[in-house]
Amino acid sequence: MSLNKRSNPLVRAFDLKGYLAQRTAAVDRALHRLLPPATTKPDTIHKAMRYSLFAGGKRLRPALCLAAAEACGGSIDQAMPLACAVECIHTYSLIHDDLPAMDNDDLRRGKPTNHKVFGEAVAILAGDGLLTEAFAIAARCRGWPRYPHRVIIAELAKAAGSRELIAGQVADLEGEGKKLSAGQLKYIHEKKTSALLCCSVRLGGMSANASAAPLRALTDFGYNVGLAFQIIDDILDVTQTSEQLGKTAGKDTAAEKATYPSIVGMEKSRAIAAQLTARAFRALEFFRGKARPLAALAEYLLKRDK
Amino acid sequence: MSLNKRSNPLVRAFDLKGYLAQRTAAVDRALHRLLPPATTKPDTIHKAMRYSLFAGGKRLRPALCLAAAEACGGSIDQAMPLACAVECIHTYSLIHDDLPAMDNDDLRRGKPTNHKVFGEAVAILAGDGLLTEAFAIAARCRGWPRYPHRVIIAELAKAAGSRELIAGQVADLEGEGKKLSAGQLKYIHEKKTSALLCCSVRLGGMSANASAAPLRALTDFGYNVGLAFQIIDDILDVTQTSEQLGKTAGKDTAAEKATYPSIVGMEKSRAIAAQLTARAFRALEFFRGKARPLAALAEYLLKRDK
Repeated sequence: MSLNKRSNPLVRAFDLKGYLAQRTAAVDRALHRLLPPATTKPDTIHKAMRYSLFAGGKRLRPALCLAAAEACGGSIDQAMPLACAVECIHTYSLIHDDLPAMDNDDLRRGKPTNHKVFGEAVAILAGDGLLTEAFAIAARCRGWPRYPHRVIIAELAKAAGSRELIAGQVADLEGEGKKLSAGQLKYIHEKKTSALLCCSVRLGGMSANASAAPLRALTDFGYNVGLAFQIIDDILDVTQTSEQLGKTAGKDTAAEKATYPSIVGMEKSRAIAAQLTARAFRALEFFRGKARPLAALAEYLLKRDK
Repeated sequence: MSLNKRSNPLVRAFDLKGYLAQRTAAVDRALHRLLPPATTKPDTIHKAMRYSLFAGGKRLRPALCLAAAEACGGSIDQAMPLACAVECIHTYSLIHDDLPAMDNDDLRRGKPTNHKVFGEAVAILAGDGLLTEAFAIAARCRGWPRYPHRVIIAELAKAAGSRELIAGQVADLEGEGKKLSAGQLKYIHEKKTSALLCCSVRLGGMSANASAAPLRALTDFGYNVGLAFQIIDDILDVTQTSEQLGKTAGKDTAAEKATYPSIVGMEKSRAIAAQLTARAFRALEFFRGKARPLAALAEYLLKRDK
């Protein structure tokens, strides 16, 4: 964690480490409360769902969701079900992506992947369970006349659906071993990562009953941070070891997957990520001081080393 | 189809064949309209989702949903998004159940299963896509003060979730090769089949703004029809050929799965199914003549031969 490499004035003297620790703990408590207990019959499936959900995820999407709510003057409590719903969707997508039929990964966040522990059948069903639970949890949020539950659910389903998150995974699989253009790779990253990050901050804004202008700013912020985040991921996959990452390093190269470094080179990749983050920062100007946590999170995402 | 073996007075002279044909066509049209077109990028996933959704399913759950709405004085139009959502969830569950890691089935409704045509990775994602789409579609229904969208979504998520539909599949997989008690088998059937059938008619009732009493009657009806339906499925798996069923026959025996015939015998299985259907008919008395389509569907489910 490069929490001290700060540059943006908004972020200076902001205790991101303390902020993230507090938010992560709050999200963990909420997830524990909202998910069926591990003893729920049949316990295999509930243990498997909780195994991946509590496997040390950084809770970046929930943190962004909560910080977006704050930036719009909303409360953590009202944003929490949506933050948890997004984390369930993120976790389900990792479980399914790791399956032998997909990326076939044995290690995730330093631990054996879900199917390595519970077997393929239960891993598929645990992903299905988390995806379904995401909608049950999202339905528990407070709605507003401007953002009734049907709008919230549609927002979540769109980001998780076959035109966004799933489209990204399909395009990613279909791109393996092929020479992709920078445009094609950008499409994959937009769908696979930006869509759900963008959804996270938009849902945070919606939970705070934000009007159209702040929601546009959040959309802009989320899109750019998401794309930057994925480019950094590509870079770290090349430059870091498995121990540093807590997951299999170099797997993009091994799977003959196109990455930003492989297409545009390492330096240009870093420059694009910095440029995207700058755009994200500009989007935050709308919120002034209330966007400090969002800005700090964005800067952390760009300067992280795992 | 044994459409002429009628016994219930409510059902006599009811043209179920015509009714089902009309309803199936209406559901198919609605699904075509509500699902992303097959040309939506990336087209692989949308082709795969539509392949299984339009592979000749009998649309029993949507038909039950629409008939329940009618029984409560509601309209087909208002129930349609929920009928389609339930069919998406049913289809997703079949795609995932058929996967090599689960029941490993090559044939479904007389056609190659999704993973046989599109490969395992895309089949998993097509299931994920249909599950997600179900919530997007359900969110498009009309809500009522008594049944706002959050209640509708919670109802759907509960039936599809890890305590119901997914719980059934887990218990089914865990029961393979084991000697189950009649109680354990009933648990599997309740979760795997009754839950979503019950949800189908309840959502139909909700779309019609039904009060507590009719909703209780529908719940009772759905539960009993669902259990009867699954027992008939067990019986047909033993007595019919693959050609007659349009799917692999005898697969329960092959997979060493407990079935009603294997635990309580064929005659008692038939008797239990008849008893459950009688209970379902009693639940319909509440609705009098308006329940004719529901009664006809229930009788059809009991007397079907495929």
